[in-house]
Amino acid sequence: MNGAESLVKTLVTAGVDVCFANPGTSEMHFVAALDDNPDMRCVLGLFEGVVTGAADGYARMAGRPAATLLHLGPGLGNGLANLHNARRGRSPMVNIVGEHATYHRQYDAPLTADIEGVARPMSHWVRTSRFAAEVARDGAEAVRAALTPPGQIATLILPADTAWNPAPEGAAAPLPVPEPAPAQPDAVAAAAAALRSGESAVLLMNGSALRRESLALAGRVASATGARLLSDTFVARIERGAGIVPVERLPYFAEQVEEALAGVRHMILVGTRPPVSFFAYPGKASNLVPEECSVHSLAGPEGDIAGALAELAEAVAAHGAPEVAGSGRPAPARDGALDPQTIAQAIGAWLPEGAIVVDEAATSGFGLPAATAGCPPHDWLGLTGGSIGQGLPAAVGAAVACPDRKVLSLEADGSGMYTVQALWTMAREQLDITVVIFANRKYAILQVEFMRVGAHNPGPKAMSMLDLSNPDLDWVQLARGMGMEASRATSVAEFNAQIESALRHRGPHLIEACI
Amino acid sequence: MNGAESLVKTLVTAGVDVCFANPGTSEMHFVAALDDNPDMRCVLGLFEGVVTGAADGYARMAGRPAATLLHLGPGLGNGLANLHNARRGRSPMVNIVGEHATYHRQYDAPLTADIEGVARPMSHWVRTSRFAAEVARDGAEAVRAALTPPGQIATLILPADTAWNPAPEGAAAPLPVPEPAPAQPDAVAAAAAALRSGESAVLLMNGSALRRESLALAGRVASATGARLLSDTFVARIERGAGIVPVERLPYFAEQVEEALAGVRHMILVGTRPPVSFFAYPGKASNLVPEECSVHSLAGPEGDIAGALAELAEAVAAHGAPEVAGSGRPAPARDGALDPQTIAQAIGAWLPEGAIVVDEAATSGFGLPAATAGCPPHDWLGLTGGSIGQGLPAAVGAAVACPDRKVLSLEADGSGMYTVQALWTMAREQLDITVVIFANRKYAILQVEFMRVGAHNPGPKAMSMLDLSNPDLDWVQLARGMGMEASRATSVAEFNAQIESALRHRGPHLIEACI
Repeated sequence: MNGAESLVKTLVTAGVDVCFANPGTSEMHFVAALDDNPDMRCVLGLFEGVVTGAADGYARMAGRPAATLLHLGPGLGNGLANLHNARRGRSPMVNIVGEHATYHRQYDAPLTADIEGVARPMSHWVRTSRFAAEVARDGAEAVRAALTPPGQIATLILPADTAWNPAPEGAAAPLPVPEPAPAQPDAVAAAAAALRSGESAVLLMNGSALRRESLALAGRVASATGARLLSDTFVARIERGAGIVPVERLPYFAEQVEEALAGVRHMILVGTRPPVSFFAYPGKASNLVPEECSVHSLAGPEGDIAGALAELAEAVAAHGAPEVAGSGRPAPARDGALDPQTIAQAIGAWLPEGAIVVDEAATSGFGLPAATAGCPPHDWLGLTGGSIGQGLPAAVGAAVACPDRKVLSLEADGSGMYTVQALWTMAREQLDITVVIFANRKYAILQVEFMRVGAHNPGPKAMSMLDLSNPDLDWVQLARGMGMEASRATSVAEFNAQIESALRHRGPHLIEACI
Repeated sequence: MNGAESLVKTLVTAGVDVCFANPGTSEMHFVAALDDNPDMRCVLGLFEGVVTGAADGYARMAGRPAATLLHLGPGLGNGLANLHNARRGRSPMVNIVGEHATYHRQYDAPLTADIEGVARPMSHWVRTSRFAAEVARDGAEAVRAALTPPGQIATLILPADTAWNPAPEGAAAPLPVPEPAPAQPDAVAAAAAALRSGESAVLLMNGSALRRESLALAGRVASATGARLLSDTFVARIERGAGIVPVERLPYFAEQVEEALAGVRHMILVGTRPPVSFFAYPGKASNLVPEECSVHSLAGPEGDIAGALAELAEAVAAHGAPEVAGSGRPAPARDGALDPQTIAQAIGAWLPEGAIVVDEAATSGFGLPAATAGCPPHDWLGLTGGSIGQGLPAAVGAAVACPDRKVLSLEADGSGMYTVQALWTMAREQLDITVVIFANRKYAILQVEFMRVGAHNPGPKAMSMLDLSNPDLDWVQLARGMGMEASRATSVAEFNAQIESALRHRGPHLIEACI
């Protein structure tokens, strides 16, 4: 057994049995070891941003880490943006990054770079293996680091000789993982007192607070006390739909957040931090907590969120049933222009039960939450770190994690281009993913933001930097070029027919919605 | 005038008048400033690897830095792989990376990351501007850093408020740039003594040693002393073709290098370092200098290479004319299979004078150097850092730098997928680029390397990680999906007709060569 084989065995023993990979020469022994282990599934991405984004989507749905396989510093660099999103979304992940053999580094061959330096800004845990005999233990520690609540990015750098040299037989045993921090009685008492004060209060939630069981507890608290339930603007995963306690989503723009929070006197944080403006704007506030509002943290992201909510429900005697979302779908539009609103209606009309919606629709997505609020239960995955290009890869990972559920990937055209290579993996793995491209042919958010930041009216050169036309992207050809079935919708009737069919049938399909 | 405007003015004043950009909200004031300045050309890329790779290709051909515009840590992350290649190729570059306003960072909004940490592994110079009043000076220092011989990566991080706050009118004046280190008499004398020893000697060259004038000097030395002229395997830019002193290229695989250098007793380094194996292999050497060979450094990459070669020529009394490559083109194949060799023949048959060849053909490129050796003078740009995905973006930059020259981008299919978005920029800017995709539908190099590293025969799971089929990529559709004209060649006759036409006519065209 060599180091690579001991590592793969250790990963599988610890429950890490999917590897999203884009390997190079220095990873060939690890690839051979993957081949030897029938319990490890390998999924190839043609670009590393697909690999790390897929591992993120997988972790959100599977609740456990996937491994990634990346090629030295530049390969890790290509994966950094989606590591950033995963880090912000608190997804567990184990990155295996190939490196030159330990004795080869000193020669500074062309691919040499400071891999630990590249890894550190986007990783919670970084280690370079020293000897083949230690690789299994390093792997076990990487998995433990990844699973440390609420989820961490662990990056293990594997010099080629630590992969190919002999190692002791067998896997390293899984290491004990820290428990989430238990609920603090003082925090529960403070939150309960705030809720009983009779003043306007909100629960602002993220992380596991947005799963069905925790939402039920939060809903009981809300029913008993009149508190509003809010989530952060961007969440890694929320369960929603008919029968589930609904949550208002904080809007994106700071002035809308201020409006949503006007008059709130108590903000109780559950798995999150106080709201801040996504960007800074001249003369506008960064901190979006209203001036007269007290902030109480019931549980941090690393805490036992369900436990804390249960204790809070007890403390405010919230024994009644929570209010849940009713069942109901919008009627699909029958005519009119194909636009974000008519698309949202169609999605609301046909979203199947158990669907996983990966939402990177950006400015085209505003109508979606309302249109799908009464659909059968489903999961909704958001852009946690603001780095666009997360959606298509995350859809890959979600579909690998949940092969029996339909994945609906709602993608802005500008965002989709960053990691467009994900379509090939969807086709190769025949994943059950429907992709809707909102083809407005511009960076619409930037055209809005250009004005909002107070830059003067844009001239033609600035506009050309915010615009995706000239030439227009043809997403049907892009998808077919990667072996993925695709169609174009330019009218409500076409879109309705295509989305209904795509959501009803298994397998990958892309719809370019020209809006 | 605000900070962003003062920075753009400073860049233009220093001769940095092209900006490859992929902006976001935090860069909107910089975009507005670009718009205001008629002397700055802006080129949009739909992914940051296109942006940094284009700036690299631009620098290689223009001999001066372009600016890039990138969006916070994740945007810089997406650009890192091609920064790595540029750093290894010693290209000058000025990256402008947007950042949250200075006062906003403390709130740790979703896009917040350690940008300096992301920049450092791939940059020679990193700074975060503190005040709008200092931005112009920071910009001038960034340009100086970029121009410091032999070329450096300078990364200036621009917090949004330093862009939008008022700044003093006008540009900061360009700062004096260090001269290349002058030739050292001892080094010249040692090299001359080695050459006069009568023992087998080579000049191993890279950097500016591979430009026509320096090659002429090296050629005179070779004629006078019998020394062989070699270049590193991967070079940023070499001038070659009829009438230019030819240079042998060191092969890629270590055992081939050992063969090429067998019996060499003196290695004189000109703008480079001793040869090392690209990767480590079990039981094989990393250092490829033959055991009995003495190494003499005539001039380092940062030195006055032309000056040192002139002094060496003088010291060995090399007054005769050098031997130059003769003129001659291969006949194109008339039948047989379309393969790397018949493609190389066709390229040799029709490569136009002054062409810029961007070579990321990987395993498909072996026949190219011989087939083009007698073509009219042209430039050849290689993959300097080993991080694939450099070719298509570098072709963009080379075409922007040299609008009157044909760019021929020779691209392996696996490599091309990493930064496939470059095709859209080629189409938008109507650049005079012919792309040839060597569509062998596998990571052919990895199938070779898998065996070479001594991993056992690959099973189906390993093979699937090294294979781009299932489904096949359709490059004609990919190109058309990005608005680029494209055609497919499956026979010698088709390829010959298509390449002849593409090289004869202006404008972007992609040929998928199915081999």
